[in-house]
Amino acid sequence: MRISTEDTGITSWPERALSDAAAAWDKLRAAGDMTGWLRLPEEYDRDEFERLLRTAEKIRSDSEALVVIGIGGSYLGTRAAAEAIKRNGVQLIFAGSDLSPNTLNNAAAQLGGKDFSVNVVSKSGTTTEPAIAFRFFRQLLEKKYGRASAGRIYATTDPSGGALRQMAVNNGWTGFNIPPDVGGRYSVLTAVGLLPMAAAGLDVRAMMDGAAGTMRSCRTCGADNPVWRYVLARSILYGRGKKIELFTTYEPSLHYFLEWLKQLFGESEGKEGKGIFPASAEFTTDLHSLGQYIQQGERHLMQTVLYVEDTGSDMLIPRCGEDTDGLNYLAGRPLSWVRKQAFLGTLRAHVAGGVPCTTITLDKLGERELGSLFYFFELACAMSGFMLGVNPFDQPGVEEYKKNMLALLGSARG
Amino acid sequence: MRISTEDTGITSWPERALSDAAAAWDKLRAAGDMTGWLRLPEEYDRDEFERLLRTAEKIRSDSEALVVIGIGGSYLGTRAAAEAIKRNGVQLIFAGSDLSPNTLNNAAAQLGGKDFSVNVVSKSGTTTEPAIAFRFFRQLLEKKYGRASAGRIYATTDPSGGALRQMAVNNGWTGFNIPPDVGGRYSVLTAVGLLPMAAAGLDVRAMMDGAAGTMRSCRTCGADNPVWRYVLARSILYGRGKKIELFTTYEPSLHYFLEWLKQLFGESEGKEGKGIFPASAEFTTDLHSLGQYIQQGERHLMQTVLYVEDTGSDMLIPRCGEDTDGLNYLAGRPLSWVRKQAFLGTLRAHVAGGVPCTTITLDKLGERELGSLFYFFELACAMSGFMLGVNPFDQPGVEEYKKNMLALLGSARG
Repeated sequence: MRISTEDTGITSWPERALSDAAAAWDKLRAAGDMTGWLRLPEEYDRDEFERLLRTAEKIRSDSEALVVIGIGGSYLGTRAAAEAIKRNGVQLIFAGSDLSPNTLNNAAAQLGGKDFSVNVVSKSGTTTEPAIAFRFFRQLLEKKYGRASAGRIYATTDPSGGALRQMAVNNGWTGFNIPPDVGGRYSVLTAVGLLPMAAAGLDVRAMMDGAAGTMRSCRTCGADNPVWRYVLARSILYGRGKKIELFTTYEPSLHYFLEWLKQLFGESEGKEGKGIFPASAEFTTDLHSLGQYIQQGERHLMQTVLYVEDTGSDMLIPRCGEDTDGLNYLAGRPLSWVRKQAFLGTLRAHVAGGVPCTTITLDKLGERELGSLFYFFELACAMSGFMLGVNPFDQPGVEEYKKNMLALLGSARG
Repeated sequence: MRISTEDTGITSWPERALSDAAAAWDKLRAAGDMTGWLRLPEEYDRDEFERLLRTAEKIRSDSEALVVIGIGGSYLGTRAAAEAIKRNGVQLIFAGSDLSPNTLNNAAAQLGGKDFSVNVVSKSGTTTEPAIAFRFFRQLLEKKYGRASAGRIYATTDPSGGALRQMAVNNGWTGFNIPPDVGGRYSVLTAVGLLPMAAAGLDVRAMMDGAAGTMRSCRTCGADNPVWRYVLARSILYGRGKKIELFTTYEPSLHYFLEWLKQLFGESEGKEGKGIFPASAEFTTDLHSLGQYIQQGERHLMQTVLYVEDTGSDMLIPRCGEDTDGLNYLAGRPLSWVRKQAFLGTLRAHVAGGVPCTTITLDKLGERELGSLFYFFELACAMSGFMLGVNPFDQPGVEEYKKNMLALLGSARG
């Protein structure tokens, strides 16, 4: 993982920014309460991890599909990993992250006659979307497996309180913990993400190792720490009026990784009338939609590019007898090489157009690299929140729509 | 289709805005050159339309899948329609809109042993992404069908010039025209969108009728015209510092419709250092990611909600004996009703939080309604561009990355 802020137009770190960063760094280290995720890659519970691996093995042995029910931080990291890295485990089917009947009916149709299990992920167990989806799939399970269905339900939830923990205890479902000092959007490297990833065949031990590697290499207090450089750059650019951070990639399978980033930063920073708006684009696709705006529209954008050199498969540009399209000079070249030139050319164009770019380059994206990225961005996000002067661990605004919705639902109670 | 600007906080239209709108309206009517799409719903070529329907019929008779190759405006409208409305025609497989080898290899894998045809959509035929994808699928076709493959290639391109037209003539492929006075992002209601949609089983005649309906109902010069109200609202809000328009929906199958909107507005308005940044979110999913930011982050957002009452399927909330999750008061209610309360509750929360909202509500989303929406937004977008003082029909900035990329590719010609 190589991080470069060379194309941000920032040539040196102002003293004031460095001292703000140091203060934010100290606050983060001292935060305590909600920073369980900070030490997780080195200090996770080894016995619990083994139990998780055995459970994943059991799911793979009796199920072709695992329905993962969760919303926000309860599924985004899992989905990001499962789409970016394809392994030979059970198929993951996601549900409970919206209120569209089509989503539930399509998920049920996808299941078809397959053997399946359910992993319901919720701190409380009462969030409307996943709670409804869980009722739906629990019914399907009971119809198909009767009393044996209890052996196919896995509840990842609060260790002691809440409705879901209560249900798990009452019904004898296998339970996993969401540590109380780890918030939803920082929870991907707990059982929240690890259980379904392991069931899908991902090497979650390598993922933890990757995260631990970043943890060790991003420890120093100063601009030699890559996390600091990223945080400094985006904070300085925000101060210069770059109010939108456009996360971009050249590989469509990273779509959900960008969605994960948007939740992480949007929920952590977007409060008290402040915060960079997190947006995403997939290149080269969106160069033909947002490209014009990025190049010449209002100058309030910064860009953070995630570029992966080797994305698994490749193909050679075919030769064509007639060459009417004029592409024969590329014949025999790997498509990945053409993509690389598009990345380099786009970077130059955007920087010249006044869009500062931070680039994060990876040789490939396996479990180790993804673990490393997850941890890098969590650390960067929490530090950014403190630098901005907000609490990066709460989300008071999310309650507003829930409160209104529940009032409307409740008033129909009659 | 009902459009309301009641929740934008704008209580009356300022004189100045009305006169700017009138000037923009006149400019649009007088623009000529690139406004072929304006009259299309009433004045399209009936004979050509019949030929298109017969061709779609032929594709359905000899193919299980149609590979649609195009980028930007050459595929976004088609994909928006095909994802929003599922009919019983051929499966559409999209390719040529990025440089990821995975996309091409996955598309080929999706084809499996199916009988297929290819619709290549490009004004020039030399745009790198679709040209490479076309070489790839042409090779697959020739391997599978030999000489008969020419009867399975459909080229939608410039009527007279360009490499793709040349190839179609040389090889005897069936061709369809992209009218020269219709730009890519305004082309969904030409053969660009209509041929693959018809092959997928969509009723494209109803779609044209829907567009014609909007054309007739949005003709007047004044704020009684719904297009005007939307354009006035977004222009006034932009002037008040709302620099991001967040397009939202409550139905995941509208994902690509929002992508189509982002291209339409981003390419039309984002120039000369101006323009509203187009972003999108899918609710309720993204209320658990961007929701916090929308509610309490930097106040530079306006929202345009597209709400569809009946999205096809529905389901009833199941009753649960124990009721530990406390949802039994909703048992027996349709999920669509719960979604409606979420929509209403969210609208109130966002408006209270300082995010002005325009709402567009539809009873259902069939071909007629979608045609109506396509035309509504094209008209609104072009008018908005003139109101902003830019040319809504060019995209000079898109050339920048292409120029750089081609230079890098060419320098390797060696």
